[in-house]
Amino acid sequence: MSRNSISTILQNYNNENAGVKAKLYQILMHGKLAGSGRLLILPVDQGFEHGPDRSFSINSPAYDPDYHFQLAIAGRFSAYAAPFGFLAASIDKFAGQIPVILKLNSNNSLTAKSQVPDMAITASVKDALRLGAAAVGFTIYPGSPKAKDMMEEAREIVQEAKSCGLATVIWSYPRGGDLSKEGETAIDICAYGAHIAALLGADIIKVKLPTSHIEQAKNKECYKSAQIHIDLLTDRVRHIVKSCFNGKRIVVFSGGEAKSEEELLEEVNAIKRGGGHGSIIGRNVFQRRWEDSLDLIEKIAYLYSAPC
Amino acid sequence: MSRNSISTILQNYNNENAGVKAKLYQILMHGKLAGSGRLLILPVDQGFEHGPDRSFSINSPAYDPDYHFQLAIAGRFSAYAAPFGFLAASIDKFAGQIPVILKLNSNNSLTAKSQVPDMAITASVKDALRLGAAAVGFTIYPGSPKAKDMMEEAREIVQEAKSCGLATVIWSYPRGGDLSKEGETAIDICAYGAHIAALLGADIIKVKLPTSHIEQAKNKECYKSAQIHIDLLTDRVRHIVKSCFNGKRIVVFSGGEAKSEEELLEEVNAIKRGGGHGSIIGRNVFQRRWEDSLDLIEKIAYLYSAPC
Amino acid sequence: MSRNSISTILQNYNNENAGVKAKLYQILMHGKLAGSGRLLILPVDQGFEHGPDRSFSINSPAYDPDYHFQLAIAGRFSAYAAPFGFLAASIDKFAGQIPVILKLNSNNSLTAKSQVPDMAITASVKDALRLGAAAVGFTIYPGSPKAKDMMEEAREIVQEAKSCGLATVIWSYPRGGDLSKEGETAIDICAYGAHIAALLGADIIKVKLPTSHIEQAKNKECYKSAQIHIDLLTDRVRHIVKSCFNGKRIVVFSGGEAKSEEELLEEVNAIKRGGGHGSIIGRNVFQRRWEDSLDLIEKIAYLYSAPC
Amino acid sequence: MSRNSISTILQNYNNENAGVKAKLYQILMHGKLAGSGRLLILPVDQGFEHGPDRSFSINSPAYDPDYHFQLAIAGRFSAYAAPFGFLAASIDKFAGQIPVILKLNSNNSLTAKSQVPDMAITASVKDALRLGAAAVGFTIYPGSPKAKDMMEEAREIVQEAKSCGLATVIWSYPRGGDLSKEGETAIDICAYGAHIAALLGADIIKVKLPTSHIEQAKNKECYKSAQIHIDLLTDRVRHIVKSCFNGKRIVVFSGGEAKSEEELLEEVNAIKRGGGHGSIIGRNVFQRRWEDSLDLIEKIAYLYSAPC
Amino acid sequence: MSRNSISTILQNYNNENAGVKAKLYQILMHGKLAGSGRLLILPVDQGFEHGPDRSFSINSPAYDPDYHFQLAIAGRFSAYAAPFGFLAASIDKFAGQIPVILKLNSNNSLTAKSQVPDMAITASVKDALRLGAAAVGFTIYPGSPKAKDMMEEAREIVQEAKSCGLATVIWSYPRGGDLSKEGETAIDICAYGAHIAALLGADIIKVKLPTSHIEQAKNKECYKSAQIHIDLLTDRVRHIVKSCFNGKRIVVFSGGEAKSEEELLEEVNAIKRGGGHGSIIGRNVFQRRWEDSLDLIEKIAYLYSAPC
Repeated sequence: MSRNSISTILQNYNNENAGVKAKLYQILMHGKLAGSGRLLILPVDQGFEHGPDRSFSINSPAYDPDYHFQLAIAGRFSAYAAPFGFLAASIDKFAGQIPVILKLNSNNSLTAKSQVPDMAITASVKDALRLGAAAVGFTIYPGSPKAKDMMEEAREIVQEAKSCGLATVIWSYPRGGDLSKEGETAIDICAYGAHIAALLGADIIKVKLPTSHIEQAKNKECYKSAQIHIDLLTDRVRHIVKSCFNGKRIVVFSGGEAKSEEELLEEVNAIKRGGGHGSIIGRNVFQRRWEDSLDLIEKIAYLYSAPC
Repeated sequence: MSRNSISTILQNYNNENAGVKAKLYQILMHGKLAGSGRLLILPVDQGFEHGPDRSFSINSPAYDPDYHFQLAIAGRFSAYAAPFGFLAASIDKFAGQIPVILKLNSNNSLTAKSQVPDMAITASVKDALRLGAAAVGFTIYPGSPKAKDMMEEAREIVQEAKSCGLATVIWSYPRGGDLSKEGETAIDICAYGAHIAALLGADIIKVKLPTSHIEQAKNKECYKSAQIHIDLLTDRVRHIVKSCFNGKRIVVFSGGEAKSEEELLEEVNAIKRGGGHGSIIGRNVFQRRWEDSLDLIEKIAYLYSAPC
Repeated sequence: MSRNSISTILQNYNNENAGVKAKLYQILMHGKLAGSGRLLILPVDQGFEHGPDRSFSINSPAYDPDYHFQLAIAGRFSAYAAPFGFLAASIDKFAGQIPVILKLNSNNSLTAKSQVPDMAITASVKDALRLGAAAVGFTIYPGSPKAKDMMEEAREIVQEAKSCGLATVIWSYPRGGDLSKEGETAIDICAYGAHIAALLGADIIKVKLPTSHIEQAKNKECYKSAQIHIDLLTDRVRHIVKSCFNGKRIVVFSGGEAKSEEELLEEVNAIKRGGGHGSIIGRNVFQRRWEDSLDLIEKIAYLYSAPC
Repeated sequence: MSRNSISTILQNYNNENAGVKAKLYQILMHGKLAGSGRLLILPVDQGFEHGPDRSFSINSPAYDPDYHFQLAIAGRFSAYAAPFGFLAASIDKFAGQIPVILKLNSNNSLTAKSQVPDMAITASVKDALRLGAAAVGFTIYPGSPKAKDMMEEAREIVQEAKSCGLATVIWSYPRGGDLSKEGETAIDICAYGAHIAALLGADIIKVKLPTSHIEQAKNKECYKSAQIHIDLLTDRVRHIVKSCFNGKRIVVFSGGEAKSEEELLEEVNAIKRGGGHGSIIGRNVFQRRWEDSLDLIEKIAYLYSAPC
Repeated sequence: MSRNSISTILQNYNNENAGVKAKLYQILMHGKLAGSGRLLILPVDQGFEHGPDRSFSINSPAYDPDYHFQLAIAGRFSAYAAPFGFLAASIDKFAGQIPVILKLNSNNSLTAKSQVPDMAITASVKDALRLGAAAVGFTIYPGSPKAKDMMEEAREIVQEAKSCGLATVIWSYPRGGDLSKEGETAIDICAYGAHIAALLGADIIKVKLPTSHIEQAKNKECYKSAQIHIDLLTDRVRHIVKSCFNGKRIVVFSGGEAKSEEELLEEVNAIKRGGGHGSIIGRNVFQRRWEDSLDLIEKIAYLYSAPC
């Protein structure tokens, strides 16, 4: 892809003000994948989500917030996303060297199992402006009894962020309520979750890679009669991208738990071929040793930037 | 009906400021039914309500938000209504070509069955102003344990919208609480729901077509002793219009699930003869192929504009 | 009573600003009972409370909001009270011809039986100012689990209304919680409810006519040892008036469901002799035919204005 | 005590602004006990708490809010405390003649038994300013499931009142939750409740007279090992005063239900000897006849002002 | 450690404004441990948490808020922390003599056992500014059903405090929900709680000393495979410090219930050797007699300032 493709992508954001478009341009033109129309984002909110030990003990230098800035810069990621305290502790040393996404809400694993899925809002758009962030990130849990509250919060934050010229990333992770565990990553549910994120005004949508399971009975008929292909991961990625305004929104896929390099590269290949806009990879990177992670990033970037 | 009838309609809104009246005039004077005193509105919130696959897979181009603007413009609808993200993604290309109604709250089908009927507020009056919308739309669920909260939200939004010179459309869909499934479209309940929307200050009221079922025991006596005719759909439409301040408010009826052309045209005929102000038709249009839908719209418009 | 009695009444409101006193003066000096120190108010919130059919089908012209303005003006009522949409639809034609009371909260009969008694706030003090209203009305349900929330809302609205120079009317209808059905109109409960309305700062207090039932055990002893007469309706009215700061607040009584002319006139007689400040009569008026209702109002006004 | 003791007391409020100190001075220098360092306050919130009949029927003139102003002035009380409506109805006639305390929250006896102890906020600091009040009063119920909400409300009101130069009185009445009925007036619970009021920033703390019961097991050991005397009411008063920052806050005790003159005077004697700053006496005054109540107040004042 | 180490510590706060850094400098350079990089803080919120009697009866002068200021000044602590009323009562006499931390939320032991762990917000950042405080303190209970609300409150307060140039201290005390009693002080839970406080933007983190218990099953594997030493208290302190951004945040440990001098000094030794930044000691100080407490503080300070 050429620089031209960036302007093609940005045309889909023509209603946004110059500030928002400039921030999307900044992220799309940064790092190894600059100008390719693909993104590689480093997210480090696992300390909040799973605790510091489960996240960092396997690669001890990762307890230090500096480490992740250094990794994101050395690995030439498109952007680095983390919660407030983690960014604030190190931003002073690395300001301007990498686009930053401030994650505005967070869950944690000390929450009782009986609580319905929800997050705490732990940062604000004003924090993002002070930290010099390019974007804010916000998670919604469609399906949760708290989903409507989260959507309302998301919309207020999207509106405020846009008015401040910041881009917005919505993590859409269906869970809770009537959804089965398998249903959380079902193709129809992922597509629905991604669509909702787009409807809420997200500039960039982050979802999990979907399985070929179809959760809702009525959707089974739809997939059948419309002959939607979902057997291959590539097809499923393509369907998610279509569900995001027929490809008019940037969609990135998360890597999930640490896995083998081979599995990961296969996923990247499927994302690329399916028209996905990139990967957001945390544990698969910072839970590897420094050299190994840089080596892996190199391979991922190579795959994304090679011609289809 | 002549242009004159528009000024007759607008006289019922004499208490509104010039901004609100101008927006009503804009909608009443746009498209095929311009000046007829009838409205034909295209609503596309089904992606939010039912998910993208159940809504769009049957007519794959409909995944693209541009499609619906193009359809509303080509079909010469009176107005096009959709949630924030859907409008924002395409408004830049079509601004000014069709009056737009921003839907401010939305439900979704990932909500657990055990949750009481409610919506999330997913856009604001300020969003409507920025998008150049002519009106805002808001749904209430009279009967739901959340109904009073929804009415309070509706009133705040109506007040803000009017103060900004925007028209307001209230979708009034009774459900939940003590209402039976059949009662949701009962004639007495539809009339009550429509009346509440009018009391909340709606300029345009959207309800479902009522059945001849009477839900509340006390109302059965009233209908009998007052000899209110409800056997024919035309009569029921007339009663709903009467319940909206004796016809002093614009009332449009929804088409509901996709159905045969014949059924649909019969409904349109009944709405017209009963004095209803028009139809709001979504799935029956965009779930048909492009040519078929334009053909259908042509027939509906012909029916509405032909002399009674 | 002479014009002089109005200034006696207004002396009890000496702490209020000139705006509030002017509004009370306006209501006390309007219509057939002008200057008598008595009030006759037409309330039409039954469309919201019971639905349009149960309220208006018996007298079909009453579906039209214009009808009630015309009735209030022709019947020379002291004031006309209704919810936002009903007033807004017709105010333009009748502005200035009759003092208007905007009802700020409303209940509805679609609410599930299992919900605790509560109302939705459906208008604001700012709405009242824009409509040119003389007063705002607000209902509280002492005894309901929501009663404290309603009292807090009432106080905020009273404070805002007074600061805008508007008078305030509080409908105090005890219900819910530990109260028996019979207790809702018990003399001790009505007196308590009226007293609370006065404590919240109401200028005019609206209660139901009390029965001779005493609900709370401790009050039975009080009534006995203090030899409070409650056998006759006149005595009970007198006691309610006394419970409103020893007659220093204006108290009006509601007519309730439609009843015979004879019953109604007996009630009016009792209110007058007991020192009540008047009646607020809705269904007993607009559910009669136009001529019959005007005839009835004439008789009521005659009773109130005749010397004791 | 001499005028000098007032300046000693005020030194404990050195952190307060001149406005707050002036208001405390005003109250301490008013009425029969002026300059003695003791206070006698007339509270009339029983109409709200227990209803007008249970409060006033035994002494019928007390239904009139003027009566209590007249009583507070004739009896030369230090201050008069009541809810908004009661003060507002009469303040115009008596403004400036007696320091007034506006009670900002109120409970009522129509509340269902199953509701947790709570109050409604029925007036604001701005109301207090408009009424020319010297102080605002607020009740907390430590122990109630609503206690933390009430404490938060109290702190916000204390902060606003101080910023407006008003003094604040906190009624601290432990109840609800795990507290036994007997525990509500236990010495350890009263001390704890009074201490919390002081921590919240109250200038004047109002508590009930404590019994010698100790509610919490751990406190029994403390009282034993620290040899705290609690057998005599005088000792218990002394301990409450100590628990309020070692006597650095003004503490007054409520009289509770109507009782014999002898009992009341014994209590006053104990309060005085124990170093309490006075009494807040309502029902024991206004439920007696005018002459009897003035006679009683005379005796109480004599006791407080006589040398120890 | 030399003065130089203070600038090393402050470099970790380079993103903070000069006001916040000046406040941290003020605390780090005050009292016996000035310039050592260690802190000794006197907290007196036990009157609120456990009641005045359980807190102060063992050392009667401690009922007086002056006592604690005198103790903090005589003992040359780094800072003194207490709730609003306690500080406000004495601040006038001691202003400027010791850095003050205003505790913004408080729990109390009158709360029913069935209530989920929570606190009341009892002071504001504005209060802190008026009292001349150097920092605000806030407690969170990770694990409690209220934890997310508390985290949201904490973040709002941190943001406001920083914007006013105040430092922030977060007390992180995991409890409630699925946590066992033993788990509240488990090494993995303490590390997680401390990490969350850092993520919320705390400048100083206060936790309890951890045990060698590991609460969460997944963490057991992590500790084992990463060979994290937790047998010795020194090692556990070191791990907590690491979990706070690899030592980039100041961490102090609480002394807990009164214990023997020997135990306490052993703990101090472990904190020092493990790289902890100091102790926050309340009951172990003010529940001892004046001379004994000064003697103990002398020994603690000697230990902290002696070379490792």
